[in-house]
Parts: sequence; structure tokens; C-alpha cells
Amino acid sequence: MTMSHATDTARAGRPRSARAHEAILDAILELIAEGMSVDALSIEAVAARAGVGKATIYRRWPNKQAMLSEAVQELKGPAPHPVGTGVRERLISLVSKIAAGDERAARIFPCMLPEMLRSQAAYELWQEIIEPRREMMREVLRQGIADGEVRAEIDIEAVCAVLTGPVLVSRVMRWNPRLDDAALPGQVVDVVLSGIAAPA
Amino acid sequence: MTMSHATDTARAGRPRSARAHEAILDAILELIAEGMSVDALSIEAVAARAGVGKATIYRRWPNKQAMLSEAVQELKGPAPHPVGTGVRERLISLVSKIAAGDERAARIFPCMLPEMLRSQAAYELWQEIIEPRREMMREVLRQGIADGEVRAEIDIEAVCAVLTGPVLVSRVMRWNPRLDDAALPGQVVDVVLSGIAAPA
Repeated sequence: MTMSHATDTARAGRPRSARAHEAILDAILELIAEGMSVDALSIEAVAARAGVGKATIYRRWPNKQAMLSEAVQELKGPAPHPVGTGVRERLISLVSKIAAGDERAARIFPCMLPEMLRSQAAYELWQEIIEPRREMMREVLRQGIADGEVRAEIDIEAVCAVLTGPVLVSRVMRWNPRLDDAALPGQVVDVVLSGIAAPA
Repeated sequence: MTMSHATDTARAGRPRSARAHEAILDAILELIAEGMSVDALSIEAVAARAGVGKATIYRRWPNKQAMLSEAVQELKGPAPHPVGTGVRERLISLVSKIAAGDERAARIFPCMLPEMLRSQAAYELWQEIIEPRREMMREVLRQGIADGEVRAEIDIEAVCAVLTGPVLVSRVMRWNPRLDDAALPGQVVDVVLSGIAAPA
């Protein structure tokens, strides 16, 4: 934050407080991307990186968890809404967006994985991101049942896992180098809808 | 390694060289479980932890990668063979074993995840473990096709991902706390075999 106030305003075109807010969120994501753990991430470290005083942070968020939550929510954006008509098209639109964030998200997520399993705070942060995404998928399946496209007796939680898991392990873990990540969402949805069993 | 030779032999009941071999493999797994990266793991560190000389290691493995590979293979054991008759039972037996290693494996795997994405050596190590497991699953699917239980036109790689991904994200990442990990393998296989679409 060494720019003069005039230059700064000209570049950003918005009030200083909005810029500070963004600088703080960016600082959090940068620190995590560099390998700092959620537990180790302190208000002091964030303030120093963002070039703001600690009071500026305390004025905006009641605690570290709320601040982190907003940073990670901003990184991932809102849960995508399904696009298209019919359960197949709508599921493909959701499955295609799994782990398809920007490059920064792709870099940050694996860094947080081991910690998500050690730290309840980090795990809850992650669940805050994915629960609205699961809910979109459940809603498409419920609508599919209502429209008579999907059998009513399915276990919706298990089906969401079957729809999500393959793309998640492929894109996040590179589970199998032979998979075609662009084709995978359609392949997964078709397997889930039609099954692979030969007709009796 | 402070035990006397007599006590040591009585406890282990096998030659000193076999015990050294195991101590080295254990040392590697302990160091990784404690957070040491595969790239940082040195022959020196392993020798010190195992209480052996570096020459003892150099006599056994041509390089670090070979030594690590054996340690991780030992941790995971050989790829499990399918059990049961018919494609459903055999797939459930394989899917049930995904990420169902001992507690040490469950602790070590997430520690290695971020590194697997940064380091080609760590990624190859991981692929050495899972490729034989994928091959078992492909073989069950091929047999299912030969037996007329599975449709011949399926994409076997994609179907393996659909079978594996849900259990992997659930057990390794705790993706959804609502899932029942014991029931999940059967649920996944039934979705994959029968699909969820309502009869036309």
C-alpha cells in the first residue's frame, strides 16, 4: 500500500474502505496459497500482508472464522445454479462446475486438505462452501423425481456422492491420468442415470 | 535400537537384516506421517530414524524412489482381489476396500496429497499404488461384459472413476458428514449398475 491516495483512487475507482476489505481477503488467500495453515493464520499476519491495521480487521469481522469464511466464499463464488432443461442437462451443468474454480482456488484447495482433516475450523469452513453446492444437486434430483424422470426410492445423499466424487478425485487429486476431464461430467451423469447393467 | 542382540532376536524371531529392512520402511512411514515431504525425505533422515547406517540403505535400494515405493507398497499391501460371484458382489468387494487401509495409511495419505500434486516423484509413487487396484476393477468389468452382465459399450476408465470417487472423497476427505461409509460401497455399486432413471 505505497501508492498515493490519488493514484489509488484513480486505479480502483472505489472507496478506500472497499479496497481495504478486498486487500484483507486477498491477503488471507495469498497466505493460505503460500502454505500457511488456517490454524496458524493470525489477524496480525493478515493485517501485515494487507497493509492495514488490526483495528480495520476487527471492525469488519467478529472473529477469525468469519473473516476466513468470507475469503473462501469469495474465492469460490456463489454455488452455481443448474442450467438447462431436464435432469440430465441440469446435472451435467452442475457436475461440470465441480472443482472448476479459478487457478488460485485450484492451488489453495489441496493446501487446505490435510488441515481440513486435522482442524474442525478448517473442516467447517470447507463444508460451508460445499453444502450449498450439494443442496443445488439435491434440488435437481428432487425435481427429477417430481417430474417422473428419476426413481423416487433413490438415496439422494449417496447419489450426490456418486455424481460428485469422480470429478472431484479427477480434478483435485488427478486420480487417473487416463481420464478426460472435459468429457467426465457427461460420462458420470450418463452412468448414474442409465446404469451399466445389460438389459435382463 | 538399544535392545541387546539376544532380546532383539527373541522378540522378532528373525535375522538382523530383515529387522533392519523393516525398521527402515517404518522410519520412512513415520517421517511422512509426521509431515515430512517426500522431496525433503533424505537417506540421512531415514537412516537416523531407523538407527542404521546409510550404507545399510544403499545396499538395499538403488535410489530414494525405490525405497519409498517399497515403504508405501508395504503400507497399502497388495491390491485386493475381488471376492464373490457376479459383477455386483465382486465390485462391492473391491469398492469396500478403497481407502480402507490401517489407521497409519489413513493418516499418511492426506499428508501426501498436496505434495502429490506438486511433485512428479510423489505422484508416480501414488499411481504405483492405485494402478493395480484400478486394474482389478477393470478386470471385473471386462468379465461382467464377457458374462453378459454389463453393457459392452461402457467407458471402463470412466466407470472405474464413478465406482471409486465417491468412497475416496467420503473416506479420505470426509466430503459429506451425512454419508454412511459402511453402506456407501453397496449404494454406489447399485447406482452404477442400475442407474437412477425412472423406467421410460
